[in-house]
Amino acid sequence: KVIAILRGDYIGPEIMEAGLKVLDAASKDSSFQYETIDYPFGGAAIDQYSEPLPQQTIAGCKKADAILLSAIGGPKWDTAKKRPEKGLLEIRNALGLFSNIRPTKVDPNLSHFSPVKQEILNETDFVIVRELTSGIYFGTPREQNEEKALDTTTYTAQEVKRILKIGFEMSMHRRKHVTIVDKANVLATSKLWRQVTEEFKKSYPEVTVDYNYVDAAAMKIITQPTAFDVIITANLFGDILSDEASVLTGSLGTIPSMSAGTDGPNLYEPIHGSAPDIAGKGIADPISMIQSIEMMLRESFNETLLADKIAAAVQKTIEDKIITPDLGGTATTQEVTANIVKNLK
Amino acid sequence: KVIAILRGDYIGPEIMEAGLKVLDAASKDSSFQYETIDYPFGGAAIDQYSEPLPQQTIAGCKKADAILLSAIGGPKWDTAKKRPEKGLLEIRNALGLFSNIRPTKVDPNLSHFSPVKQEILNETDFVIVRELTSGIYFGTPREQNEEKALDTTTYTAQEVKRILKIGFEMSMHRRKHVTIVDKANVLATSKLWRQVTEEFKKSYPEVTVDYNYVDAAAMKIITQPTAFDVIITANLFGDILSDEASVLTGSLGTIPSMSAGTDGPNLYEPIHGSAPDIAGKGIADPISMIQSIEMMLRESFNETLLADKIAAAVQKTIEDKIITPDLGGTATTQEVTANIVKNLK
Ligand SMILES: CC(C)[C@H](C(=O)O)[C@@H](O)C(=O)O
Ligand SMILES: CC(C)[C@H](C(=O)O)[C@@H](O)C(=O)O
Repeated sequence: KVIAILRGDYIGPEIMEAGLKVLDAASKDSSFQYETIDYPFGGAAIDQYSEPLPQQTIAGCKKADAILLSAIGGPKWDTAKKRPEKGLLEIRNALGLFSNIRPTKVDPNLSHFSPVKQEILNETDFVIVRELTSGIYFGTPREQNEEKALDTTTYTAQEVKRILKIGFEMSMHRRKHVTIVDKANVLATSKLWRQVTEEFKKSYPEVTVDYNYVDAAAMKIITQPTAFDVIITANLFGDILSDEASVLTGSLGTIPSMSAGTDGPNLYEPIHGSAPDIAGKGIADPISMIQSIEMMLRESFNETLLADKIAAAVQKTIEDKIITPDLGGTATTQEVTANIVKNLK
Repeated sequence: KVIAILRGDYIGPEIMEAGLKVLDAASKDSSFQYETIDYPFGGAAIDQYSEPLPQQTIAGCKKADAILLSAIGGPKWDTAKKRPEKGLLEIRNALGLFSNIRPTKVDPNLSHFSPVKQEILNETDFVIVRELTSGIYFGTPREQNEEKALDTTTYTAQEVKRILKIGFEMSMHRRKHVTIVDKANVLATSKLWRQVTEEFKKSYPEVTVDYNYVDAAAMKIITQPTAFDVIITANLFGDILSDEASVLTGSLGTIPSMSAGTDGPNLYEPIHGSAPDIAGKGIADPISMIQSIEMMLRESFNETLLADKIAAAVQKTIEDKIITPDLGGTATTQEVTANIVKNLK
């Protein structure tokens, strides 16, 4: 198997290295064989090629079986003509990665770091399925001059159906409950989402479906997070709500995500940013990257045993409190990584 | 002074009645003279005139000195051709109410109801200034058929400037800190907001200004709410973030809001909905309506003393725990109202 590696900026390369060490250790003595190939991306690619997503990276990623991406961007490129984040939008588009999957699961060992009270969090465990290649992110026309500006949100029934499919299928392996988040009391695109959903849900009679307005959902995520199982929503709403939801866990530095298309490789990445303030200090939390790799093994390579092994090793390291400062610990990136590797045995 | 009264649906009329009792008691023996005139609006207006915002209501509101609106909408009109909420959008537009002001202030007496931990809340006290008559709510074209749908977000520099003015002026009476929330890494309209702000802020050298992406702001409102003083943002982002922020207080049933234009009357209303589940039970929390009236006295009529008197009376009632079930109490709407009236003396 070929894994394309996009090492990222600032703490990006530090946690990528940690993740690859764990993957290497876990897969040794297993039947899982893989090769990694590095491609330039983000700020690093701007420095080298004046382009956050060079052609060679698109070509390489397309041929890979999975893509690992570490956090990109940062102040160095704030005034760049084309910013690193533009590369993110382009790679999603170029590879047809129309769905983004973000688990929000509260780990009892870390929930004391949550800003939200324990009695609200309980066993919070939901997934946000965000549409990733349409909506206001890609709609045209998009225009701006000194006097006015315009953005366009578009959705086709086809685009809605394919993201619904991802979310409904996922709910079948979970609590069979889907919440569509929209703003159907105002937006035409939301009305289309509802119409398509009403038809689509007939194929999933076991799944209960409800609709939440995005403003109400933004409240409910904090006041009643256990009410959700699978949230399916448009690009912009998913961006806002998945970041909001991530803080419930109290451990941003540990959360992985997956972006997927129809065929072609999935992309796995931590949800956090490139943390310029702690770059080079050796204290970045590698767990989000390691869990992104675990997610890759499970979803792209069907390597459940390997994935379970990594998950258990991570869990043990957290329980033993070998954790970085973001989780209240004093361990370095290397110490956490070494401990997880040790726990694999 | 003439106050236009839009009584609302479900618990709407119950809390309006409570609010007007308090206004009546507070203004007796004062120099503040007023007259109230009822107009049909929302669900009630649909029942009577097949129209959530009849012409007579627009005309009457335009002539008034201030407007009090109670919560509208509910299941009864879910399948109406034109829903009550449409009336909200129309009245904002018809009266040019381009700004919506929502205070988020944590009351130490109620903060134990917050889903967020006390040590995070501290002295949280910020205001969200939401643009209310442009953006994706009013942009055209807006189209939908079975196969696709489209919404348009527009802003002009003029629209951005006038909402900035509201927010910057407000910050001058507060901690002189403004946060612009946008999605400037993706949206053309957000880029316009930033450009206009960079120019505009030169007239307010004492005000510190920063920019937050809406996804990051959705996190920060929960993790670090004390970082904000005045948030200024577009219509849709303001809708989502102000609802999110409201749950910090733990007391939705007590929060007022104001919508204002250039000239013409301001509109004051509770931020919560019409609560069909508790309508008619006499247990709706009247405090949001009473505080909306307090805000009206302060902002529209410059009746600071009257407003302070009401604020103090409400505070005392809360301290004495004469509160409705939403705040953990057992008092009825009438008991809370009577107690506040008593405390006015
Ligand atoms: C960087 C930005 C364009 C991006 C987005 O909004 O999609 C990011 O916030 C994310 O969620 O991956
Ligand atoms: C009812 C709805 C159209 C409205 C809005 O989104 O503006 C409401 O949520 C609000 O915030 O007043």
